[in-house]
Amino acid sequence: MNYPNGIKRNFKISNSNRGMNLENDINDSNVYYRKNEIAVIYKKPTPITINKVDYKNRKDAVITEAHFIIPSTTDYNGIYKGNYVDFEAKETKKDYFPLANIHNHQIEHLKKIKNCGGIGFIIVRFTHNNETYLLEIDKLLNFLDNSKRKSIPKEYFVENGYLIKQGYNPCLDYLSVIDKIRRDENEKNLEEK
Amino acid sequence: MNYPNGIKRNFKISNSNRGMNLENDINDSNVYYRKNEIAVIYKKPTPITINKVDYKNRKDAVITEAHFIIPSTTDYNGIYKGNYVDFEAKETKKDYFPLANIHNHQIEHLKKIKNCGGIGFIIVRFTHNNETYLLEIDKLLNFLDNSKRKSIPKEYFVENGYLIKQGYNPCLDYLSVIDKIRRDENEKNLEEK
Repeated sequence: MNYPNGIKRNFKISNSNRGMNLENDINDSNVYYRKNEIAVIYKKPTPITINKVDYKNRKDAVITEAHFIIPSTTDYNGIYKGNYVDFEAKETKKDYFPLANIHNHQIEHLKKIKNCGGIGFIIVRFTHNNETYLLEIDKLLNFLDNSKRKSIPKEYFVENGYLIKQGYNPCLDYLSVIDKIRRDENEKNLEEK
Repeated sequence: MNYPNGIKRNFKISNSNRGMNLENDINDSNVYYRKNEIAVIYKKPTPITINKVDYKNRKDAVITEAHFIIPSTTDYNGIYKGNYVDFEAKETKKDYFPLANIHNHQIEHLKKIKNCGGIGFIIVRFTHNNETYLLEIDKLLNFLDNSKRKSIPKEYFVENGYLIKQGYNPCLDYLSVIDKIRRDENEKNLEEK
């Protein structure tokens, strides 16, 4: 099968690549969104502290010692239809989402984004059946406020989140979920009037 | 002089630190904005490609070979009063801003942000007199469209940009410039009606 950019993909996915699938799907979708001028959303670089750099020549400085650091924020942010969008994406092999997979300060960060008028959420993929859900930060906080569990069961995502359509272009159309949330909110507001 | 966080600063700035002053001022201002719930804006991590990682133990993986890569986007982004904010910051020792200091794709990125309804700009500090200007992406594009020069003279920033107030807290109040731009736009719109 030929992909638009001419790269043939290997569908035999090794174990070591499995954790990267969701990230790849989101990155590919973001490329699609940018190319079609739908949204400008990027994954942030991995945060590290650099200890040693070897300036072999002017053009190529080689980092010879660096350490990974805990990110202060989430992995992805950008702009969609004038709105600030911010989210974290995680995969799980279980039929629940272990809360250890997301840092407390990332949840706090998403809460602040919501308070500033932005759109904050998490994307979680359950790899055993390849279902991917978008859960708004409000719904995540609601779970945390009302449960002492160390994981969120998949049912909570089914009932309170949105299943993200997977297809060809974009391969993971998470922004159409944002549109749906907005439509649902507008309908709710109209009903209340 | 004691700073709020108890850190005493060394005002004897070495040459090697000079390029970091603007970055430090913006980072300090962003901390102030976040603490006071004014805005949530961060500097993105330095983009690198990681070639080798030494897993000495479970807790500490050491990156032993990595390379700097050209950033796809700008250094800073976030949310202010519900608006997506995106910018690049640069220092220059000259009384002009060399265009080689900013990548073409960063200018393209800021243009896309503007088209999506976001607020895009550059912050440039002229270190010889420590004046720092905010120049909106529109004004930057306007210069590029009408000039073949490889640098922007300081006068262009004085006439088309906004001088950013430097003070105590925040030390570089660039978001107050955004407020001023919005006020100017509203006044202009009212006059046109």
